[in-house]
Amino acid sequence: MREEIRKALQEIVGAKNCRDQLIDLVSYSYDASDHAKRPECAVFPSNTKQVSRIMELANKHRIPVIPRGAGTSLTGSVVPVMGGIVLDLCKMNRIIDVRIADRLAVVEPGVVYGQMEKELAPHGFFFPPDPASSQVCTLGGNVATNAGGMRGAKYGVTRDYVLGLEVVLADGRVMRTGTRCMKSASGYDLTRLFVGSEGTLGVITEITLKISPMPKAVKTALAHFESLEDAGKSVTDIMHSGIIPSVLEILDENTIGVLRERAAMNIPDIRAMILVETDGYTDGEASFQMDKIVEIFNRHGASFAKIAKTAEETEELWQARKSAGSVAAQLRPNNVSEDVTVPMSKVPELLTRISDTVRRYGLPFVIFGHAGDGNLHPRIMYDKSDPEQVEALERAVEDIFKLACDLGGTLTGEHGVGLAKAPFMHLEHDPVAMQTMKALKETFDPNNILNPGKMGL
Amino acid sequence: MREEIRKALQEIVGAKNCRDQLIDLVSYSYDASDHAKRPECAVFPSNTKQVSRIMELANKHRIPVIPRGAGTSLTGSVVPVMGGIVLDLCKMNRIIDVRIADRLAVVEPGVVYGQMEKELAPHGFFFPPDPASSQVCTLGGNVATNAGGMRGAKYGVTRDYVLGLEVVLADGRVMRTGTRCMKSASGYDLTRLFVGSEGTLGVITEITLKISPMPKAVKTALAHFESLEDAGKSVTDIMHSGIIPSVLEILDENTIGVLRERAAMNIPDIRAMILVETDGYTDGEASFQMDKIVEIFNRHGASFAKIAKTAEETEELWQARKSAGSVAAQLRPNNVSEDVTVPMSKVPELLTRISDTVRRYGLPFVIFGHAGDGNLHPRIMYDKSDPEQVEALERAVEDIFKLACDLGGTLTGEHGVGLAKAPFMHLEHDPVAMQTMKALKETFDPNNILNPGKMGL
Repeated sequence: MREEIRKALQEIVGAKNCRDQLIDLVSYSYDASDHAKRPECAVFPSNTKQVSRIMELANKHRIPVIPRGAGTSLTGSVVPVMGGIVLDLCKMNRIIDVRIADRLAVVEPGVVYGQMEKELAPHGFFFPPDPASSQVCTLGGNVATNAGGMRGAKYGVTRDYVLGLEVVLADGRVMRTGTRCMKSASGYDLTRLFVGSEGTLGVITEITLKISPMPKAVKTALAHFESLEDAGKSVTDIMHSGIIPSVLEILDENTIGVLRERAAMNIPDIRAMILVETDGYTDGEASFQMDKIVEIFNRHGASFAKIAKTAEETEELWQARKSAGSVAAQLRPNNVSEDVTVPMSKVPELLTRISDTVRRYGLPFVIFGHAGDGNLHPRIMYDKSDPEQVEALERAVEDIFKLACDLGGTLTGEHGVGLAKAPFMHLEHDPVAMQTMKALKETFDPNNILNPGKMGL
Repeated sequence: MREEIRKALQEIVGAKNCRDQLIDLVSYSYDASDHAKRPECAVFPSNTKQVSRIMELANKHRIPVIPRGAGTSLTGSVVPVMGGIVLDLCKMNRIIDVRIADRLAVVEPGVVYGQMEKELAPHGFFFPPDPASSQVCTLGGNVATNAGGMRGAKYGVTRDYVLGLEVVLADGRVMRTGTRCMKSASGYDLTRLFVGSEGTLGVITEITLKISPMPKAVKTALAHFESLEDAGKSVTDIMHSGIIPSVLEILDENTIGVLRERAAMNIPDIRAMILVETDGYTDGEASFQMDKIVEIFNRHGASFAKIAKTAEETEELWQARKSAGSVAAQLRPNNVSEDVTVPMSKVPELLTRISDTVRRYGLPFVIFGHAGDGNLHPRIMYDKSDPEQVEALERAVEDIFKLACDLGGTLTGEHGVGLAKAPFMHLEHDPVAMQTMKALKETFDPNNILNPGKMGL
């Protein structure tokens, strides 16, 4: 980092908020993916004005700026592949306003999802997307990656809850997008252009979120299937029934095998497991939906189907799903969790084809995910220190992307593109769509300083 | 129209699908607003290839192209203010695919909303936005204006249901945006950039819509209030209660006055009326929500509150709301229906301030709208042939925009910007947001041929 730049940054954020010791550079070289590259420094702005001045400086000197939340990205989206300044927004963590009667909350990007949850709970409200990293990830990161979670089928993803933003553009100009109303048809949807843009179009400095009443009554059930086909038919029939479960998780035979071998759970040798939740204001509503679903499970020959009657039973039914990731991760030192999504009716086919394909590479893997919105997380275990395993992993992942796109799917349901999926964007998006995304990037960031090298742009 | 261009258009769509007789030019000079200007011709493409060739031609010769659905715009958004070619998409009206298990439908832009409703109903599904013009308006128009309706509070607007698009760009290139999955975090959200862009960024030639199960159980109630303040407190308390009604309509004292004078309805001399609907899979769920709401009405001194017990009673409770617009319209030869939206807690204040302000102009007016999402439709009656009334109307409308923006609101909840609100965009959007919208317009349409002169761009 040139002395002149360091001094200018220190002048903006104060010396202690501008770090470039080795430990800082190493800390900010990685996220939750396998990618890594050191930045030149990390700065900690505490307000929009500072972010604006940093961007102005960086734009003038053509220095990459990588906005960063909690660094939980699974795709390398906050790895500073071209060096530059990591803009850590963790100090901009105020919940500015919670307006229940207007169904909204105004927050800074560094607010942790779990902190928001706690703030809203006493009002009986929540912000539904609920990513798996909810206790550490930031709302800014949620917006930047259009994060989602297990409740997507019924409650949607982050995009569905962002009403408006304050954004600092590449040259330091500040703008407000969107609205603080529930509805607006006024001008281009700038807000959603930034949702999922992974810090490549601007720095999000304030978020207005729509919030939702927490469901009061919840029912949970678990079903076992001797054949994947029957599990798939059940999912299709649930969709046709018009019931939208709040959770509809599927675990494949690989996952079940690992749990049987490695966990102290008493699971029979079955081909698929489905965990489901329904909700409503009343017990009657949640039960009505669940009864229909269990009827569908039974019609398709479920070998076991149980609705939890107590909190303990609920906990028990969730156990396999909750343990799946961590138990599987024990098989090898490293693992990659993929995130492909297909139309719901293609879930069984995707499960089978991924299994058949990935098996050939000799790496252990499991597949589970959100059957209710078609979002599967194949997880492949490997040893990073073994080049052969790394190569096998890379080929397996590429095959998974191809299979998903072949079935009309997407590379990523909720993790984003980052570095990991950048080389495969053309599998999903046609040349004109890619040209258009590039044109947008150029319009917003002509000097390519905002999180450069990401998303295949 | 130059002979060379006419011939080229005829060659693309066939002679009978390219019209420029006086009757055609007059027909395509207006929409459902008061704006009018004749185009040079109207063409009727029947597929994407034809649209692409038309755009290529128009771009080469710098001829404006105005994509048009059913022309129900209330803002002049399909009026060809700069002449050119009206691209009537009514012949592209195929429902291409309905995939219930995948919760989606693929349609051409000319499909009428009501036609879609009929197609989905036997499956127990619907496309929720439900604009007031649903029996005539097209889905392409719904997407282009981000249309909404009475169910917005619970079910959202068009934007929430568009998964992907096929779009023809200004130079004739064709691209697919988005996905046919429920979820995707793959690249910039090109899809929603086109939602609400009113034909200024590209021509939508195919739409993939998310569909929803139709609610099975519905409860309807009506309440009368002696004071607007009490009605407002009720709305606020409903929001705090965590109940999201599927309908929450408010009628102000002006509306009630007109209905009392002009309609054969037995309505007492009250200050506000609220119509509400709740829904669910079960009667119990709909009733639970409605009982809470009626309890809130009573707590705030409603002089009347009734839950309908039969279909006839439901019809009866809806009567005032359904008649309000047409009864008011009888007062003068012309009327304008505005569409401002504010955060829900500001609805009573907006009602009072609009009343106080508009009253001064001496034109009859009524205000009703969707209290559940803050979207009000002040309707002002006037005589177009009287310049004084026209001036009064214009000043009143401008005041309404200012009042809404003052309260943190938006110029338009669901009608769009078009010509009517173009001069007022700066009231709502800051200079950088306006610059950004202009930069987007230039990126997508450098020759400014796509519906030019709209949206203040």
